[in-house]
Amino acid sequence: MKFWERTNRYLWMSVAMLLVCGLAAFAQAPAAAPPAQAVAAPTSAQATPAPAAAPAAAAPAMDVPLDIKAAAPPSADDLAKGDPGGTKTGTVSDVVAADTKKGLTLADVVNQAGQNRIAINFVWTLIAGFLVMFMQAGFALVETGLTRAKNANHTMMMNFMVYGFGLFAFWVCGFAIQMGGGAPYSTLGGITGLNGEYSISVFGKPFGLWGTHGFFLSHGGAYDVGAMVMFLFQMVFMDTALTIVTGTCAERWKFAAFAVSSVFMGAITYPLYANWAWGGGWLAQLGSNYGLGHGYADFAGSGVVHSVGGLTALAIGMQIGPRIGKYTRSGKANALPGHDIVLVLTGCFILAFGWFGFNPGSTLAASGNGALRIASIAVNTMLAGCTGSFGAILYMWMRYGKPDASMAGNGLLAGLVAIRVDDCVGAISVHGTCGLWGVISVGLFADGTSNYGGSWNGVNGSVTGLFYGDASQLVAQFIGVGTLVGFVFTLSYVAGWIIDGIIGHRVSASDELAGLDIPEMGALCYPDFVLKPEREIVPAMAVGD
Amino acid sequence: MKFWERTNRYLWMSVAMLLVCGLAAFAQAPAAAPPAQAVAAPTSAQATPAPAAAPAAAAPAMDVPLDIKAAAPPSADDLAKGDPGGTKTGTVSDVVAADTKKGLTLADVVNQAGQNRIAINFVWTLIAGFLVMFMQAGFALVETGLTRAKNANHTMMMNFMVYGFGLFAFWVCGFAIQMGGGAPYSTLGGITGLNGEYSISVFGKPFGLWGTHGFFLSHGGAYDVGAMVMFLFQMVFMDTALTIVTGTCAERWKFAAFAVSSVFMGAITYPLYANWAWGGGWLAQLGSNYGLGHGYADFAGSGVVHSVGGLTALAIGMQIGPRIGKYTRSGKANALPGHDIVLVLTGCFILAFGWFGFNPGSTLAASGNGALRIASIAVNTMLAGCTGSFGAILYMWMRYGKPDASMAGNGLLAGLVAIRVDDCVGAISVHGTCGLWGVISVGLFADGTSNYGGSWNGVNGSVTGLFYGDASQLVAQFIGVGTLVGFVFTLSYVAGWIIDGIIGHRVSASDELAGLDIPEMGALCYPDFVLKPEREIVPAMAVGD
Amino acid sequence: MKFWERTNRYLWMSVAMLLVCGLAAFAQAPAAAPPAQAVAAPTSAQATPAPAAAPAAAAPAMDVPLDIKAAAPPSADDLAKGDPGGTKTGTVSDVVAADTKKGLTLADVVNQAGQNRIAINFVWTLIAGFLVMFMQAGFALVETGLTRAKNANHTMMMNFMVYGFGLFAFWVCGFAIQMGGGAPYSTLGGITGLNGEYSISVFGKPFGLWGTHGFFLSHGGAYDVGAMVMFLFQMVFMDTALTIVTGTCAERWKFAAFAVSSVFMGAITYPLYANWAWGGGWLAQLGSNYGLGHGYADFAGSGVVHSVGGLTALAIGMQIGPRIGKYTRSGKANALPGHDIVLVLTGCFILAFGWFGFNPGSTLAASGNGALRIASIAVNTMLAGCTGSFGAILYMWMRYGKPDASMAGNGLLAGLVAIRVDDCVGAISVHGTCGLWGVISVGLFADGTSNYGGSWNGVNGSVTGLFYGDASQLVAQFIGVGTLVGFVFTLSYVAGWIIDGIIGHRVSASDELAGLDIPEMGALCYPDFVLKPEREIVPAMAVGD
Repeated sequence: MKFWERTNRYLWMSVAMLLVCGLAAFAQAPAAAPPAQAVAAPTSAQATPAPAAAPAAAAPAMDVPLDIKAAAPPSADDLAKGDPGGTKTGTVSDVVAADTKKGLTLADVVNQAGQNRIAINFVWTLIAGFLVMFMQAGFALVETGLTRAKNANHTMMMNFMVYGFGLFAFWVCGFAIQMGGGAPYSTLGGITGLNGEYSISVFGKPFGLWGTHGFFLSHGGAYDVGAMVMFLFQMVFMDTALTIVTGTCAERWKFAAFAVSSVFMGAITYPLYANWAWGGGWLAQLGSNYGLGHGYADFAGSGVVHSVGGLTALAIGMQIGPRIGKYTRSGKANALPGHDIVLVLTGCFILAFGWFGFNPGSTLAASGNGALRIASIAVNTMLAGCTGSFGAILYMWMRYGKPDASMAGNGLLAGLVAIRVDDCVGAISVHGTCGLWGVISVGLFADGTSNYGGSWNGVNGSVTGLFYGDASQLVAQFIGVGTLVGFVFTLSYVAGWIIDGIIGHRVSASDELAGLDIPEMGALCYPDFVLKPEREIVPAMAVGD
Repeated sequence: MKFWERTNRYLWMSVAMLLVCGLAAFAQAPAAAPPAQAVAAPTSAQATPAPAAAPAAAAPAMDVPLDIKAAAPPSADDLAKGDPGGTKTGTVSDVVAADTKKGLTLADVVNQAGQNRIAINFVWTLIAGFLVMFMQAGFALVETGLTRAKNANHTMMMNFMVYGFGLFAFWVCGFAIQMGGGAPYSTLGGITGLNGEYSISVFGKPFGLWGTHGFFLSHGGAYDVGAMVMFLFQMVFMDTALTIVTGTCAERWKFAAFAVSSVFMGAITYPLYANWAWGGGWLAQLGSNYGLGHGYADFAGSGVVHSVGGLTALAIGMQIGPRIGKYTRSGKANALPGHDIVLVLTGCFILAFGWFGFNPGSTLAASGNGALRIASIAVNTMLAGCTGSFGAILYMWMRYGKPDASMAGNGLLAGLVAIRVDDCVGAISVHGTCGLWGVISVGLFADGTSNYGGSWNGVNGSVTGLFYGDASQLVAQFIGVGTLVGFVFTLSYVAGWIIDGIIGHRVSASDELAGLDIPEMGALCYPDFVLKPEREIVPAMAVGD
Repeated sequence: MKFWERTNRYLWMSVAMLLVCGLAAFAQAPAAAPPAQAVAAPTSAQATPAPAAAPAAAAPAMDVPLDIKAAAPPSADDLAKGDPGGTKTGTVSDVVAADTKKGLTLADVVNQAGQNRIAINFVWTLIAGFLVMFMQAGFALVETGLTRAKNANHTMMMNFMVYGFGLFAFWVCGFAIQMGGGAPYSTLGGITGLNGEYSISVFGKPFGLWGTHGFFLSHGGAYDVGAMVMFLFQMVFMDTALTIVTGTCAERWKFAAFAVSSVFMGAITYPLYANWAWGGGWLAQLGSNYGLGHGYADFAGSGVVHSVGGLTALAIGMQIGPRIGKYTRSGKANALPGHDIVLVLTGCFILAFGWFGFNPGSTLAASGNGALRIASIAVNTMLAGCTGSFGAILYMWMRYGKPDASMAGNGLLAGLVAIRVDDCVGAISVHGTCGLWGVISVGLFADGTSNYGGSWNGVNGSVTGLFYGDASQLVAQFIGVGTLVGFVFTLSYVAGWIIDGIIGHRVSASDELAGLDIPEMGALCYPDFVLKPEREIVPAMAVGD
């Protein structure tokens, strides 16, 4: 009896998990998500002045006033009457002239075309970044809904503050370490100041380790509108990685340890790996330096976001240990049901909404050089989410013969927590495992149809995987995986170990049993509602024994 | 006593209803929402090569390098220092040159102008589509808030999974049936591959029945960025229609029957009617073939989305019957109050937010051919929502003399459920009735001020209704209404009848009384909270007797 | 005992407060948020026909067909096959030709460049407006979460209806009063119809008092797509100010008094001050008329939105008095804990999301004249939010030595409510005080690096404050502050006093103790959940005595 109490979480967890899993995998899938990379190939498609070649005689004059009457601009009367149909608004009169006394020239028109392109890219990337930022609300609701009511304040607050902590760390040094050597950002206006990458020499080749420009977003040319767009978008990506850990360690993590861990991860762990993958660091250079395919390829963060987050969650989750009551004496896992499914599924909706920023926004462009593929990426994101949730429900349905799926949730549970880390929301499986798979899959399945604006990581041609002829790309991907497991996990483990020694990761057992809201946060989440006494909930766990 | 328990739902329901009602009606109102249609008139405003007419002597040379120095591009030093004010970013240097060795030509500038236009259209339509997708969260919250706590998991889960089921069905065949014959999509780049409409001949004219290209979004030219934008936007529209049914049938619908019904509706019912109205099918051809106005005109889905959804809800709602306790022996309706008004109104906010994508996004464009009227449509959407909610509250206030509106809710109830279908959230009235009214109102009130880019459904000139001189447009609209009631309702009824025979629409009475969350979903929605025993809620219904 | 029950609200309140405080201050910070103003300097940067100067001989011909083959448009075969990579879509073929028979001319290309610029500005400003509209959901959740469960329906409903009431008032006359004299709106297409400002003469200079065009959004040239964008964006700003008052007066405000107050504020109070600051009224003219800096400068509404809202909240809050139980006999403040922290923090997330529309959207542009600084504003918005929440948590942590912060919440309380107005959600401090500070800070810290497109309020050059050499700008800002405190507060106080006399602001004591949901709204918010009896909550207040 009460069997349902321990099953509901896992049902939803698995739905969310497959959804996320699918999103990560599809975003990485070869032909599916083929956008241009910010860092790669900045100049190849940029307009550069023609070399010595003198303009031919017939070149139209750039600097003489155009006969704008020929373009039939709206009359003063038109402007006064108003334009309800939108047919007279937006004309030659709205092209900005550099010198209004002189009048509009062809040079102004050309500049306007460039301005429009960059403005479109700004609008797209900023809005995509806003959507990714909003995903924090989704994570907060999913994680809080999957925890028990006595910990709801604490879980919600971790998710809320991770935005502030992470942004602070990223502003201080994270952005500089990650992107301080990655300029020029060709789709965002071509800023060149953030070009200081600290490198050592390995086998006679530069081996980039971290960026050195852009601290506090003001140093080294970072006080620039293009750099701001890049900061905003990269920051919300980083934030997504940080929030993965709060899901795993919920219901028992000391708020102080959480705060320090998050700042460290946003300042050091994430930016280092992101520099190597996206900021011009050594993983990105594997192709141009050592001939390994196009270097490590990681489009929308399978490795950078999901694996870094998932592996850090694993490291800290191993140190913090399972929740009280999670495992029976014989080692069997109990379900600790979350307290509000409306929150969980609302959070999933918000995540699916924000994901439309995450993947399609990763092009950092909407106009020029094939950036219209944002449409293709958006649809793939949608299909991946569908496939994930559809797959989860179908799996449970077919296997257990009925849609209630309660046993299905329990069944899935075994596989999910088999590693014996108590992961409150399944974050390690969702992000860590699926993320690593995403990284490897590029090395296997990339079919060469996406040319990433002509090159990726400075290597001309298209990325292809083992099954399409380039085994060396797979090697580059495996080096990435090795770095994630060998370096990122180790760094997170050591940092977590130090924090554990100084602060302690885990609250006291009595606080944990009473719920973290009072001892850690000083306030109940739902003071007006009558909650079931613990004894009504606990026995359900015994059944699973 | 306890009179309030049976009244709260109807208050909010009526608010939401009028809000939706207003939105649907206004979006359809003649002068109010006059955007271009995707399918209509693709080539008329497209640039096409000048015919034989040779370029005049003074035509500026397209293919010689421009003197870009005259446009004063930013210097290397400018780019290195950063541009905090945004005044040096986005210039001639950002216009993409096809041949960087040769340098930037006028041809590149012209191409950039076209690329920018399509990019703007993509960005607008995609983001509008994201907003519409997010409406699913709104529907989920409104519907769940209006049901009882014992069914919250089930209602939430139906709304969550309808996204996956519907998308799957639409991807397999729905999109092909709907839009597979509707190309070219002129505002999205002019793709022509999806042009296979299966037609029969009626009175010597083609009578389009369904599209034949685009299955699995890969067949027949569908693997295209413009087709992807169209798919994403049409899919989320379809999803909106599907979710109408879950509202009506909540608290008693078997999850398996829901799943099969949703897949059928997303694969067949909706796409068929949408093809006839929007995909170049016979309703759209009524004007060009038989001289009935501009053919059936349905801008943002009054008929396609709201009526199809509402009529399907009616068909299944009639088969599934009212909830236990809904009607007394004497036939009087009881109120079954929803369990969380915060959810209901939060959902309404999300719907109002997403509606800014629904109506204004229906232009599928923001640049060119009068697409700037997106502003007008957005404001009308806003005013319609305001008018709806304002009207609802005023009506209740004036009629019952006090703002508490509790009796007002009850009073409105009679009218709303007079058809004797127990519609949990009032979806049939909101979507079905108002949707049909929206279709007819075009045939009455269209005043000819919106010219839809010069033609609609291939008939030149503007759409006008009966009161503005074109009675034949009203005929076309009534043919649409007849098709909805005659064909769509019948198809849904028959499909529902078959599903009822095989699966059964309705859960057992004991499951319904206990709540669907355990028997259908296997988990309570709120396991930690103490709920009132049923006996405290049930007596309230007796009062209504 | 139960000490936590009275502390939780204040913790979150202070977090939210500092967050908002930071946002308001940063948005106003000198070098940080330097966008162009809608009203100012409309023509200076607009393209205007070259004066007498005849086009030079080499001016390229505008009206002869271009050799578009040189631009290599996609072939029919390309269009039929589809373009998965997005590299063939968006070309010369998508530039709209005015005369398709003649073919594409340079004039068409120039018009397309202008159309694209305005379309980008429309898309940006509309989406920003949608985001601001969605902030209403955030306010609703924050306010409702901070009230007690027995008032949740009432608080939610006030926040929901304020959107309808406010929009109605703004549509009838608010927009006309505010912006009816503010045209042309240069970034939105240059409409000139809304140019009727009623002015008197003061010291021989025009002294603008209110706009006279644009009533019902149809009069005086308002039926225009550019005016619609302006209406939508200004309306959601106004709505933000209105919702500040509902937070302060929650849990005791009669719904009828709320309705009338909101309509008055949206129709008169807000639009008047907004006209003076943004619509070309006398505060904006202080610079050009009397040499006081650039006139009153208020970028994203520190004064117009936050101070007007906060001061109106103060005026009505003083009249309505504190909630029963708020203060002990000895005058000490008790905490009345909110009932749902998940709602509070979810609301904060939504507010942070919407704020990306609020501040960056205030440029009303994304392309041309330095509008790319939207990136800088977005990042400053983000950093301000981070700084605010980070600062709040650090303050409490450092001061009280532990992260639980429960006492911190209580400590902060004293300062927050020292003015002895019972402000349920701290809105007066957050919006009123911080807003006034934002206004003054411009007069102190503006460093002249933002040139607002060359002028602000018609005065050439950049805005600088006292510390950067222009004391007269500080005078202009103080005149604004004086007007807010002297006029806006007084007007709100008098209006509130009249409403109090006729309707009465406050519900009866018995209704207040029982909760407003039944007597005012006629329905409980959570009818299925068991709430704690009042006696379990009330004693907690005694402890604070």
